[in-house]
Amino acid sequence: MKNYITHDEWCIVENGFHAGHNEITESLMSLGNGRMGQRGNFEETFSGKTLLGNYVAGVYFPDKTRVGWWKNGYPNYFAKVLNACNWVGIDIKIGDEVLDLHTGSVEDFRRVLNMKEGYLERTATVTLPGGRKVKIHSKRFCSMAHDESGAIRYSITPLDFDDVITVTPYLDGNIRNRDSNYDETFWNEIQKETSFSEGYLILETKANPYGVEQFKVATGMAFDIRINDLKTDYQSLPVKREKYVAGTVMIDVREGQELVIYKYGVNLSSANYTSDGLLPASKEYIKMLCQTGFEKLFAAHRKAWAEKWEKNDITIEGDIAAQQGIRFNIFHLQQTYTGEDERLNIGPKGFTGEKYGGSTYWDTEAYCIPFYLSTSEQKVARNLLVYRYKHLGKAIENAEKLGFSNGAALYPMVTMNGEECHNEWEITFEEIHRNGAIAFAIYDYTRYTGDETYLSEFGLEVLIGISRFWKQRITWSADKGKYVMLGVTGPNEYENNVNNNWYTNYIACWTLRYTLEIINKLWITDGTRLNEIILTTHFDLNREMGDWKHIIENMYYPFDGTRGVYLQQQGFLDKEILTVDDIADHRPINQKWSWDRILRSCFIKQADVLQGLYLFEDDFTVDEIRRNFEFYEPMTVHESSLSPCVHAILAAKIGLKDKAYEMYVRTARLDIDDYNNDTEDGLHITSMAGTWMSVVKGFAGQRVKDGLLSLAPYIPDQWTSYSFRIGFRGALLRIRVTKEAIFVDNISETDITVVVHEEKIFAGAGQTVTLPV
Amino acid sequence: MKNYITHDEWCIVENGFHAGHNEITESLMSLGNGRMGQRGNFEETFSGKTLLGNYVAGVYFPDKTRVGWWKNGYPNYFAKVLNACNWVGIDIKIGDEVLDLHTGSVEDFRRVLNMKEGYLERTATVTLPGGRKVKIHSKRFCSMAHDESGAIRYSITPLDFDDVITVTPYLDGNIRNRDSNYDETFWNEIQKETSFSEGYLILETKANPYGVEQFKVATGMAFDIRINDLKTDYQSLPVKREKYVAGTVMIDVREGQELVIYKYGVNLSSANYTSDGLLPASKEYIKMLCQTGFEKLFAAHRKAWAEKWEKNDITIEGDIAAQQGIRFNIFHLQQTYTGEDERLNIGPKGFTGEKYGGSTYWDTEAYCIPFYLSTSEQKVARNLLVYRYKHLGKAIENAEKLGFSNGAALYPMVTMNGEECHNEWEITFEEIHRNGAIAFAIYDYTRYTGDETYLSEFGLEVLIGISRFWKQRITWSADKGKYVMLGVTGPNEYENNVNNNWYTNYIACWTLRYTLEIINKLWITDGTRLNEIILTTHFDLNREMGDWKHIIENMYYPFDGTRGVYLQQQGFLDKEILTVDDIADHRPINQKWSWDRILRSCFIKQADVLQGLYLFEDDFTVDEIRRNFEFYEPMTVHESSLSPCVHAILAAKIGLKDKAYEMYVRTARLDIDDYNNDTEDGLHITSMAGTWMSVVKGFAGQRVKDGLLSLAPYIPDQWTSYSFRIGFRGALLRIRVTKEAIFVDNISETDITVVVHEEKIFAGAGQTVTLPV
Repeated sequence: MKNYITHDEWCIVENGFHAGHNEITESLMSLGNGRMGQRGNFEETFSGKTLLGNYVAGVYFPDKTRVGWWKNGYPNYFAKVLNACNWVGIDIKIGDEVLDLHTGSVEDFRRVLNMKEGYLERTATVTLPGGRKVKIHSKRFCSMAHDESGAIRYSITPLDFDDVITVTPYLDGNIRNRDSNYDETFWNEIQKETSFSEGYLILETKANPYGVEQFKVATGMAFDIRINDLKTDYQSLPVKREKYVAGTVMIDVREGQELVIYKYGVNLSSANYTSDGLLPASKEYIKMLCQTGFEKLFAAHRKAWAEKWEKNDITIEGDIAAQQGIRFNIFHLQQTYTGEDERLNIGPKGFTGEKYGGSTYWDTEAYCIPFYLSTSEQKVARNLLVYRYKHLGKAIENAEKLGFSNGAALYPMVTMNGEECHNEWEITFEEIHRNGAIAFAIYDYTRYTGDETYLSEFGLEVLIGISRFWKQRITWSADKGKYVMLGVTGPNEYENNVNNNWYTNYIACWTLRYTLEIINKLWITDGTRLNEIILTTHFDLNREMGDWKHIIENMYYPFDGTRGVYLQQQGFLDKEILTVDDIADHRPINQKWSWDRILRSCFIKQADVLQGLYLFEDDFTVDEIRRNFEFYEPMTVHESSLSPCVHAILAAKIGLKDKAYEMYVRTARLDIDDYNNDTEDGLHITSMAGTWMSVVKGFAGQRVKDGLLSLAPYIPDQWTSYSFRIGFRGALLRIRVTKEAIFVDNISETDITVVVHEEKIFAGAGQTVTLPV
Repeated sequence: MKNYITHDEWCIVENGFHAGHNEITESLMSLGNGRMGQRGNFEETFSGKTLLGNYVAGVYFPDKTRVGWWKNGYPNYFAKVLNACNWVGIDIKIGDEVLDLHTGSVEDFRRVLNMKEGYLERTATVTLPGGRKVKIHSKRFCSMAHDESGAIRYSITPLDFDDVITVTPYLDGNIRNRDSNYDETFWNEIQKETSFSEGYLILETKANPYGVEQFKVATGMAFDIRINDLKTDYQSLPVKREKYVAGTVMIDVREGQELVIYKYGVNLSSANYTSDGLLPASKEYIKMLCQTGFEKLFAAHRKAWAEKWEKNDITIEGDIAAQQGIRFNIFHLQQTYTGEDERLNIGPKGFTGEKYGGSTYWDTEAYCIPFYLSTSEQKVARNLLVYRYKHLGKAIENAEKLGFSNGAALYPMVTMNGEECHNEWEITFEEIHRNGAIAFAIYDYTRYTGDETYLSEFGLEVLIGISRFWKQRITWSADKGKYVMLGVTGPNEYENNVNNNWYTNYIACWTLRYTLEIINKLWITDGTRLNEIILTTHFDLNREMGDWKHIIENMYYPFDGTRGVYLQQQGFLDKEILTVDDIADHRPINQKWSWDRILRSCFIKQADVLQGLYLFEDDFTVDEIRRNFEFYEPMTVHESSLSPCVHAILAAKIGLKDKAYEMYVRTARLDIDDYNNDTEDGLHITSMAGTWMSVVKGFAGQRVKDGLLSLAPYIPDQWTSYSFRIGFRGALLRIRVTKEAIFVDNISETDITVVVHEEKIFAGAGQTVTLPV
């Protein structure tokens, strides 16, 4: 754990330069707008520890898979988010000296991510090796209003000298992914252009043998240089090198004068433009940016952020660390995915790093969709569902590769385009509960929005594919006289290749049940559409539905009658049952223990049975949930970022307030405080949705029941009050909870009936209802 | 399966050039002498499909491990047998044309591995692209009498022209391992020298960051050129390039004249010479070879082979394919390991290929030691045991790396120097039954030889280390009230990470029991030595022995009472129980099925429960063995080369003669007929010992009982007779079995009492006893 970040309600603040933690800070201070993004790198040269990172949404490269020992069924490539052209760079030379915070001596350093307005600001006084002092100030943002662009205001003030300052704003495509499997680079240059104060670079991802689309990205820049923010005359020397364009400006600056550089950048992807259109569109875009100017662009950007916060801010009074934590999570979620484009998804690192490649994990369905359902327009969550619908064909192919047939669909563990990327057999082939999460998200969306059209239009086909997979994946055990599911890995990846993982068995049967229910419903409401689907999917109604029913009725679930707990998997009780207190010196076990020791131990990486009780809580009594929580939570090491939020929600539900708070802090400040010693690789974006859920579903007990929004709020002892906004079927509520009261403030124009602590409350448009806690 | 190799009693014969199978033939026709070896490559240039391979025993390189996803506990490197300097090469130019069987047209091609005399011979008539015809003839061997050397007689006869022939015998160290993990080369040049007809090249393995010894190998050559085998005058031009030395000779040859090249080669390793001594020793060696001359060297070599065959030939009358098969197996075993050097072991590919790296697997203990016990001097098997004793410290370190303590030893899955090389968690960390095989080999050696000294001198320390490992590796299951063993992979690698693999549980308890027995025995026979061992190993006599007893008495063994079979692992009966007949079109499943489908199926790669019944047959009734055989054999796909021999032995024991014969043919001709479509990678050396066992332990029922050699021979219907030689405690017997009789021929000077079909028979020195079958 680290704690060099200053606690602040709205900002992530680094006071004084923590060079040793620079890659962590760069991750924390990443900027994005759903379409492009970047780590909190310095604009000027920096020769110290840094992970340069610029990313363009949806642009990836199918890097050759690296394995030690090949297993049949492994994919040929691992699609990874591409580290793209650096458009923020501005080299600065003062006289003959390169400005570099690694070689200079730095005072009054302050780097701030302003989450309210979505910008990164940095000030510092630097003494160059030659002894001269300059002050620098930079401010930049990735525009939420114009989401293919960003802008920088960078200034430098000589404090004790007059000299020529050489300024070189550039675009550099000589970029490599740190996680390249064979140290290869992934970009080719296609075209470049420079003029007085503009530069354009079109790069293309290298050819690949996997038939994966090659992307072109046009990056453009324009710059303007001023003294004391006033227009000034200068000469600019265009520079062109392999995958590099720049303009070099030499300008006389006197002591105390502020040399200001405005730099505008755009990133246009061939996913959205024709090849021929890329360059002209970049030029048009750049022209628009220059004409609008930094301040107006920033104003539009700030306004877009204000609208976002208006919809999804959470305030916490009395606990500044908790306040900072939750806003940090919301901020990064909003930066990563805006829901504008149904081809995109939520990468586990967003625009903050390279690790994990791919863009889509089951995290999206299990963690992110609930967040977007409550905080964004309906179409955002719907687009995330459509993304999977579009990949249904690939999911069927993926299952065929593993030996399944008849339209059985196995969605990939990690993907960019629907094809599987990951290659650990125990994950790729066995962590199949992901399929269940994808089915559950369809249910979750429908339950929340009341929009049944998704099911008939798209959802049912996905459900049929997944149900067919479950049908083929289970085995009839003559020995047990039950269906069993062999060789799986549950959400708890610290167990591999187990039989009858309770969670997977449960979600499999749930999928079958839900699919049957939807078919029966559609039979009545829209038989024509149902017939279409039956034809498209070659569905054998009687046989397949009969098979599914038989499975539902005869599935085996491991259970311990003595303790009254569901067993994570068959044979779990053969382990030595310990608690994390017994191994305090051994944590994190994923760093301190060999893999086989982890596997043989009872310790749990992330909620597994508890994940099931969380998703399907209505199927269980509070007593059952408590018994299971009390059995499993003491064994859970939470070494997955996705774990604490589920424990927080369940702890809140069963009244374990201290535990719920502990889990909340852990999830909210995971990255800021670098709990797992890996923030430098990038942020845990998807688990941030879990943080939001810990407040809204945990402390405020938000659920949907019989089509109504339901709440059961309490307030953690450590807080004075908290509030959040939540959208539900056209209404927008601000919920505020204090020690004394719950305020339900309907700030929309739609009347709503909500359930609070199991009582129905009517909140008319614009009306506030106050209730006791 | 392929069948282009001509059936022959003593030879492997390729009639006509099968260019498409060249790499298979190269594997089959490999030569070796325990100290060096090579694939059956051509001497002259060959631009077709070939895997050039020359190997020097004990010389390896720690290649950087390649993994997709790192797991804690993985080793940093994978030690691999090094493809070494090519000393057999002789480039031939006829006029301006390079002699190359890939570009020329080939007639009368014949390549023969003569197993009786241990040489490789090749004749061919080649029409060069320009139309001229030559006849070539080559013969070469790796000397069994002088085991750091080899010799070649290569001749070329112009059939329809006179011209200058340019002959370039060379040493080439520009060699790369085909299985290099990152396409790197592993050799540096240290020194080279050439003179008129000699050349020397000293290469060193590249530096590595793992603290692994760098090897130097000095390769030397001398050549002599004759016409019609008569001395002739010629000039030689020495050539030197990076890692290459040669001598080029141009010589006028007339139609019908035979140009003969004698080439002698040596390979000396820094494992056996000082660095400074390598070059002078090579020169001395070469001098000796030249003075002795090809024919006398060959005579000594032939004599050494005659002595080997005298001791371990198996003859089979009436079944030439079976005869060829068994000799092929014996021949390659003898070439691979001679037992002269206790630092060496038996690589899975011997000197025939690169695949699998390393040199030592559990194959050595489970398969090879029984072969060497019966066919070689006692010291050969003893040296194989000492090899593991010397690695005990490393085995303890290896276990510590995985979290074990108190001197627990886990021997590596694959090793060169005692350190683990392999990196699949399910194998490396879990296929721990190998530890049991190493313990069992100590018992096997002692039982066979009657030599108890190995136990007190070395064996008991190894047994204590392994027993301690088992003690720590098991878990007390409160649920079962039994000890269980979680997370293992048994011999059947088509199951991973299972609980309570019956074989592993059994061999673990057997080890504990045997170790206790040896301690108790030594207590009586040599208390002083026992005390020494107790001090060295910090053995807590009462506590540790008490713990072991408790485990032995309370181990859990999965068993199916209904069928009366031991279950391969807990939960095995949850699978769908099929037989290989049900999946005829799907084989081999390791090529046709995804890994997860294999894992979930009941199909068995190699004997697992049956391996245990084979090793511990005295603990079980014949009925029990039959029940288990009949249950498991129909599910076994034998996709490991180590599998059929065990099934052959058990089938023979329980009277399933056809099955025993089928399994025998499968193991004996595995490589010749390329059953598993992988002979091109090299031969399955270690399983060849299993082939020998199928005859001797299978058909002839050889066992050791109460210190006596015991036999229970029968003859397969397909054979007229078979015979083998077997050494036992100083006596050497020739056993011959016909349809009518068993002949026990004591060809040694030591009297012996043997048990034949449970009757004690005295066979005096030189005496033959005849018995009914």
